[in-house]
Amino acid sequence: RRTGVPEAVLCASKSGTQIQAILIAAASAGRRLLFTRLEPAAVEALAPECRALLDYDPISRTAWCGGPPPAGTVRDGVGIVAAGTSDLPVASEAARTLEFLGFSAPVIADVGVAGLWRLMRRLEEIRGFRVVIAVAGMEGALFSVLAGLVDAPVIAVPASVGYGVSAGGTAALHSALASCAPGLLTVNIDNGFGAAAAAVKMMGKIKD
Amino acid sequence: RRTGVPEAVLCASKSGTQIQAILIAAASAGRRLLFTRLEPAAVEALAPECRALLDYDPISRTAWCGGPPPAGTVRDGVGIVAAGTSDLPVASEAARTLEFLGFSAPVIADVGVAGLWRLMRRLEEIRGFRVVIAVAGMEGALFSVLAGLVDAPVIAVPASVGYGVSAGGTAALHSALASCAPGLLTVNIDNGFGAAAAAVKMMGKIKD
Amino acid sequence: RRTGVPEAVLCASKSGTQIQAILIAAASAGRRLLFTRLEPAAVEALAPECRALLDYDPISRTAWCGGPPPAGTVRDGVGIVAAGTSDLPVASEAARTLEFLGFSAPVIADVGVAGLWRLMRRLEEIRGFRVVIAVAGMEGALFSVLAGLVDAPVIAVPASVGYGVSAGGTAALHSALASCAPGLLTVNIDNGFGAAAAAVKMMGKIKD
Amino acid sequence: RRTGVPEAVLCASKSGTQIQAILIAAASAGRRLLFTRLEPAAVEALAPECRALLDYDPISRTAWCGGPPPAGTVRDGVGIVAAGTSDLPVASEAARTLEFLGFSAPVIADVGVAGLWRLMRRLEEIRGFRVVIAVAGMEGALFSVLAGLVDAPVIAVPASVGYGVSAGGTAALHSALASCAPGLLTVNIDNGFGAAAAAVKMMGKIKD
Amino acid sequence: RRTGVPEAVLCASKSGTQIQAILIAAASAGRRLLFTRLEPAAVEALAPECRALLDYDPISRTAWCGGPPPAGTVRDGVGIVAAGTSDLPVASEAARTLEFLGFSAPVIADVGVAGLWRLMRRLEEIRGFRVVIAVAGMEGALFSVLAGLVDAPVIAVPASVGYGVSAGGTAALHSALASCAPGLLTVNIDNGFGAAAAAVKMMGKIKD
Amino acid sequence: RRTGVPEAVLCASKSGTQIQAILIAAASAGRRLLFTRLEPAAVEALAPECRALLDYDPISRTAWCGGPPPAGTVRDGVGIVAAGTSDLPVASEAARTLEFLGFSAPVIADVGVAGLWRLMRRLEEIRGFRVVIAVAGMEGALFSVLAGLVDAPVIAVPASVGYGVSAGGTAALHSALASCAPGLLTVNIDNGFGAAAAAVKMMGKIKD
Amino acid sequence: RRTGVPEAVLCASKSGTQIQAILIAAASAGRRLLFTRLEPAAVEALAPECRALLDYDPISRTAWCGGPPPAGTVRDGVGIVAAGTSDLPVASEAARTLEFLGFSAPVIADVGVAGLWRLMRRLEEIRGFRVVIAVAGMEGALFSVLAGLVDAPVIAVPASVGYGVSAGGTAALHSALASCAPGLLTVNIDNGFGAAAAAVKMMGKIKD
Amino acid sequence: RRTGVPEAVLCASKSGTQIQAILIAAASAGRRLLFTRLEPAAVEALAPECRALLDYDPISRTAWCGGPPPAGTVRDGVGIVAAGTSDLPVASEAARTLEFLGFSAPVIADVGVAGLWRLMRRLEEIRGFRVVIAVAGMEGALFSVLAGLVDAPVIAVPASVGYGVSAGGTAALHSALASCAPGLLTVNIDNGFGAAAAAVKMMGKIKD
Ligand SMILES: Nc1ncnc2c1ncn2[C@@H]1O[C@H](COP(=O)(O)O)[C@@H](O)[C@H]1O
Ligand SMILES: Nc1ncnc2c1ncn2[C@@H]1O[C@H](COP(=O)(O)O)[C@@H](O)[C@H]1O
Ligand SMILES: Nc1ncnc2c1ncn2[C@@H]1O[C@H](COP(=O)(O)O)[C@@H](O)[C@H]1O
Ligand SMILES: Nc1ncnc2c1ncn2[C@@H]1O[C@H](COP(=O)(O)O)[C@@H](O)[C@H]1O
Ligand SMILES: [Mg+2]
Ligand SMILES: [Mg+2]
Ligand SMILES: [Mg+2]
Ligand SMILES: [Mg+2]
Ligand SMILES: [Mg+2]
Ligand SMILES: [Mg+2]
Ligand SMILES: [Mg+2]
Ligand SMILES: [Mg+2]
Repeated sequence: RRTGVPEAVLCASKSGTQIQAILIAAASAGRRLLFTRLEPAAVEALAPECRALLDYDPISRTAWCGGPPPAGTVRDGVGIVAAGTSDLPVASEAARTLEFLGFSAPVIADVGVAGLWRLMRRLEEIRGFRVVIAVAGMEGALFSVLAGLVDAPVIAVPASVGYGVSAGGTAALHSALASCAPGLLTVNIDNGFGAAAAAVKMMGKIKD
Repeated sequence: RRTGVPEAVLCASKSGTQIQAILIAAASAGRRLLFTRLEPAAVEALAPECRALLDYDPISRTAWCGGPPPAGTVRDGVGIVAAGTSDLPVASEAARTLEFLGFSAPVIADVGVAGLWRLMRRLEEIRGFRVVIAVAGMEGALFSVLAGLVDAPVIAVPASVGYGVSAGGTAALHSALASCAPGLLTVNIDNGFGAAAAAVKMMGKIKD
Repeated sequence: RRTGVPEAVLCASKSGTQIQAILIAAASAGRRLLFTRLEPAAVEALAPECRALLDYDPISRTAWCGGPPPAGTVRDGVGIVAAGTSDLPVASEAARTLEFLGFSAPVIADVGVAGLWRLMRRLEEIRGFRVVIAVAGMEGALFSVLAGLVDAPVIAVPASVGYGVSAGGTAALHSALASCAPGLLTVNIDNGFGAAAAAVKMMGKIKD
Repeated sequence: RRTGVPEAVLCASKSGTQIQAILIAAASAGRRLLFTRLEPAAVEALAPECRALLDYDPISRTAWCGGPPPAGTVRDGVGIVAAGTSDLPVASEAARTLEFLGFSAPVIADVGVAGLWRLMRRLEEIRGFRVVIAVAGMEGALFSVLAGLVDAPVIAVPASVGYGVSAGGTAALHSALASCAPGLLTVNIDNGFGAAAAAVKMMGKIKD
Repeated sequence: RRTGVPEAVLCASKSGTQIQAILIAAASAGRRLLFTRLEPAAVEALAPECRALLDYDPISRTAWCGGPPPAGTVRDGVGIVAAGTSDLPVASEAARTLEFLGFSAPVIADVGVAGLWRLMRRLEEIRGFRVVIAVAGMEGALFSVLAGLVDAPVIAVPASVGYGVSAGGTAALHSALASCAPGLLTVNIDNGFGAAAAAVKMMGKIKD
Repeated sequence: RRTGVPEAVLCASKSGTQIQAILIAAASAGRRLLFTRLEPAAVEALAPECRALLDYDPISRTAWCGGPPPAGTVRDGVGIVAAGTSDLPVASEAARTLEFLGFSAPVIADVGVAGLWRLMRRLEEIRGFRVVIAVAGMEGALFSVLAGLVDAPVIAVPASVGYGVSAGGTAALHSALASCAPGLLTVNIDNGFGAAAAAVKMMGKIKD
Repeated sequence: RRTGVPEAVLCASKSGTQIQAILIAAASAGRRLLFTRLEPAAVEALAPECRALLDYDPISRTAWCGGPPPAGTVRDGVGIVAAGTSDLPVASEAARTLEFLGFSAPVIADVGVAGLWRLMRRLEEIRGFRVVIAVAGMEGALFSVLAGLVDAPVIAVPASVGYGVSAGGTAALHSALASCAPGLLTVNIDNGFGAAAAAVKMMGKIKD
Repeated sequence: RRTGVPEAVLCASKSGTQIQAILIAAASAGRRLLFTRLEPAAVEALAPECRALLDYDPISRTAWCGGPPPAGTVRDGVGIVAAGTSDLPVASEAARTLEFLGFSAPVIADVGVAGLWRLMRRLEEIRGFRVVIAVAGMEGALFSVLAGLVDAPVIAVPASVGYGVSAGGTAALHSALASCAPGLLTVNIDNGFGAAAAAVKMMGKIKD
């Protein structure tokens, strides 16, 4: 935890046996531990007494063992903005990671720039955050527009939503990286976890 | 000319000898002819009497022989919107092609979305066009924002402006193609000529 | 609807729960709404009373709620040309979107350029359209040939039909963008919806 | 300046005429303005009285007009770490941008991970920064190692240093994005300016 | 020569010293030898007595030593079709290689498919060849149209003519490979030499 | 059939309904017709009386209706060489296409160049063919070695066999295109059909 | 076996029938033979008497027939280092191949560089090997760090572990190839077999 | 030097000032130091007294200061095989690096596989090496053929020789990585230095 944020267990290419062993080791040691990319089917495959150790959320496909953060320590200051309904799984991965790490972060959804007024209606609220996480797929035009409107640092999370040239999320990733709005930051496609970890590192330097 | 727009001479990979021969043939036949991607150095290399046949513009790197369109036939209805100063050569290729084909098209520049208010200030003017050509490099976020604000068809021309992931214009091209604004149309990177030709085809179907 | 065409609901990366909620909201508000990329299995998964609200077509994978366009308002002028039978789902997405938006558009299929005479036989009919949507996969040679033969604007829809270098539709997309026929326009791979939306924007500027 | 950082003038694809016009406009208005990617040859090409308006640095290829930040306002807290000597132009672009924006940021160079002890020797110093900017080309392994050792947010700037698969900087960019160190942030290849702008946005939320 | 065609000397990445040494060795041994991708500047740099050994053509950038094929042995049967003037250097590389190998092959130029009638006018002539070499850049639509019209084998040579997505010739290459015309064959981008060598291998199996 | 080879029906992206309709139309008209990429499951899904019309081979996934070529007309002269057992489906697609078009072509398998002696043992046999089709995946080194050893034209069919950088067949395709053996020809990845069609076009020019 | 290592049977694109035939041929001839990429389902599909001939390991998906290497011949000297648990299937493919070829190689797992101390704790042990095989996915930063710390040759095996830009393993592959640590060697993504074969070739030149 | 091989100075993206400073520091300290990618023009630009410190070779573009390895310590055992004359600069970078590190390595050139007998003639000599470095561009078929014929470890160095799909060396790199010859190892494109460093690491484990 020397870096302010702990590593999490990325379950996508782990076998059920591996996941269960890691969970039992953490639970035995009384360690809190976050699991990401944990598919519902993988949860089903766990032994029932293992499953009972987990707080699981199927939309974000995240789980943790060891309970919530200590009461009274939860902070705010981070906000999550998502372009469309399709981006909610990625936005939720960020929100759940933040929750696990002691932050309560609202998700403002469906503010894609094809209908600019939807974003404008929520702008005051967004301007209140100290760190903004933005999730968008397709062409990711939301990133530049948003970063041009707020003075907080904006972390772009390109989502693998789309087809043709935007299949896999590369078009949105490149929009984030090539943005003409100064100071936009990027993480890997679909990496809601990484965006949340970075936001927590920033908040660690900001005293309330 | 069965398609409403004539072919032009793309000079980029032609030798000086080839360009001169094509020009002489057209001039001898009294044919009007448009040359694109004609570098200043290539114009310098022409025989002086050939150079004298051309109306050349170094910013757009376009030239034509055979004089302007017949007086009294020039139409308007097409507008060109450019995100930044770096996009002006491409925007000018469109404007000059339109001029050659009988259309007078204003260029509205420096309205990139990193500063949204700059676009908003010009919006009423832009909404007056029947066909809009939009030129942008970097991440091309302008395309989606614009197409979400006007009811005219919008033709995106991605510009090869930028570096890193936007070098060569692919990031802007993919933004245009993946746009979540319904009905955005695209041509090849830097293809101001093609966008103008398409606009003329559309205007050919629209009676004043 | 400020842009002349409404947004549609792209169902590909939405959960059943999300789709159903959007449908119920639209139906309750008496709003007409188009759904694209709606797989038969997703329709099956809807509650029966929701399914009953939809006019669904499994070939194009489109649906709408709120009934057909008002009687007596349907226009023509747009035509759809498809290279092969494999391109019909994409061509149908365009046709159904046009139908939803108040246009009746015939589909002329199986006119790929490997057998040029098939295209030539239908040329007069195609020349009658004011806007042409062309759908082709593989190498997309149809786009250039067609755009060189008609004076209406042509919108190319590259289809993700093919294998090897044409798997995913990129070869056809690049053919459309690099076409030496002046004025060809392109939308994203498989984006029949976007081509139809663009055609409607053009037709909005053309009075009958 | 609503976003906490002003836009700068990216000179790479602007003509001498354009750059000069922008400079004169800013100087006349008494506005401070930053120019990036300004090649020595482009500076030479300016009129002498224009050149005299600029504080130019050839290593970073940056210049500004309007003088230094107001005395007594310069803050620290941001540090720049560069893997090798080849990364210094990019690191300097970040340092100069920070200087223009009122931050004094030391550059710690030649700490690439092929010789890990070089990095370890400077670790305490690096751990003192509130925001770390890391510049590396080739495979960019420095990013992950560094982000695993410090608790400040780390902004990776991939440099277009290398050849073969690392030519152009994509290998380093992908290393930054795919890093297994939680919370690493990325900007475009060679984008020292963008990293500095993001650091300033973060520092704007951190009171001394 | 066990394969029916000799290797040629690809000069593109050889130093002047290397080329001169190879030439002298061949001339001393009285061997006929073909040089490709030999730039005018490289010919200039040769010692005058070496230059005198070469039959050099600057358009195709080919040269040979050892004189023409034996009189009375020259065959015909191979034809070369080029889409535009820009494709002539590549078409000439094929023609000159064929000449060196004992075949006289006419070049039919400027028959790109954007103006289909230009191709149709020359069709009977093209149908007379036993092997057809087709050269085209941009989107390479010529390949499919041609292969659908003739019963001879067609060898596509994609040319690196174009910009944006067709820069470098990949779009034309993919059109050739993905062609829906059965039996189209392809060689590398700009490889006029290879197409000629393949044509000679075919002609070696066809007795007059 | 003006091109010497008929088009075939590529079933990969056609629905069962479409395939059945095409089959019935051909059978009713008494037309022989070849189907490629026809999966066993798709054959199973046909109505039994339709299935009965087909001569189906599950390894090559090809089928035809209308019976074998007329007795007494079958020619030889074409040979197929495959690097490994994994390449047999693609090799069989070529062999079956040739059979449908009236050619009997032996398949020489398991002669990949990692064990060069295996190829050498079969060399005399291979040298007897007038046209050679070579199928190889992984790195496709077989193509260059083979084309350097025989004087017949060699058609390379890259197979989508392999993983990592050779997944999808691009590495083998590029080996074929970049081969330093003069005169190697290429078709699309996995395109056994196209290679066979090209071989038939060549054989059409070669009288027995 | 002229190369010191025998070829193995890559089962990934072979049918059950093909695998069974190869196995029976080897067993009948009393030949030892290694099978890689043999999925559990493919083993299940074998006839029971065939299955009984195999020593199968589902984690590495490897099998062999013909029994273990002769007793008393097993050597050590090769070590395998894996960044995370997700890399164990690839690491095991290497370990099992080494076992088949007569080498006993320990696997040191979970030493990724995001937590550098984990690697440092095992460094003495790793420094004892004469050849090191390193397996890592994501960004593959482990390769450079490791190769900068040991004097044995290091063979990098990039693993197809990750998502977004690291999906498929290309990011890790490029890190290995572009490494700034002198003398790092690479094999294809997921190619544990190839790394082991190379290690055996090296050990063949090193006498105990 | 803890890794058995020292880092070298990659001059490609360093300024003349930087190179000179590094050289003077090494010379003052009496340290031997290798410089790679040092263009003749960069050597010319050095101060004469600096130039005098260097043993420079323009073909390999390498230089060193500090004199040759101590007399009497030079070993052999490493051989370099190059496919063509164009590959000699890369082969020489490997040979010069080996010389600097105390190894005398012969270069066997012009043995590309398009003429297999050329390789076969030199095979016995090649089989005498304990480590083989192979350099090839174009399609890199030499790598697989060679690795299938010798029992020493083979290190492939793909060269950026070729055009079209082999421009930049990626086709040869992928051939090396995807090779079906077990145990082939790869370094980055043009990385003769890295191949030599790896060979030295191997030889460090092999006692004479
Ligand atoms: N969703 C995620 N995206 C990116 N990295 C993750 C994610 N979840 C976990 N990680 C990190 O990925 C690595 C996984 O390591 P391991 O679980 O050992 O394979 C650790 O560094 C985690 O902190
Ligand atoms: N700037 C341009 N961008 C795209 N296509 C062009 C441009 N200029 C000319 N063309 C077209 O490209 C083709 C050039 O053909 P050619 O001049 O014969 O090589 C013609 O079809 C032109 O209409
Ligand atoms: N088939 C389609 N192709 C492209 N865009 C679409 C399609 N269907 C809907 N859209 C647009 O994609 C966006 C989907 O947004 P949402 O439904 O909020 O995720 C909207 O802007 C739609 O208008
Ligand atoms: N896991 C593996 N990775 C890379 N190459 C392999 C692997 N397993 C087997 N091979 C090689 O791949 C080729 C497979 O040939 P075949 O079994 O004839 O298709 C042989 O050269 C094998 O030695
Ligand atoms: Mg979006
Ligand atoms: Mg822009
Ligand atoms: Mg098609
Ligand atoms: Mg570095
Ligand atoms: Mg062309
Ligand atoms: Mg193979
Ligand atoms: Mg890793
Ligand atoms: Mg080679």
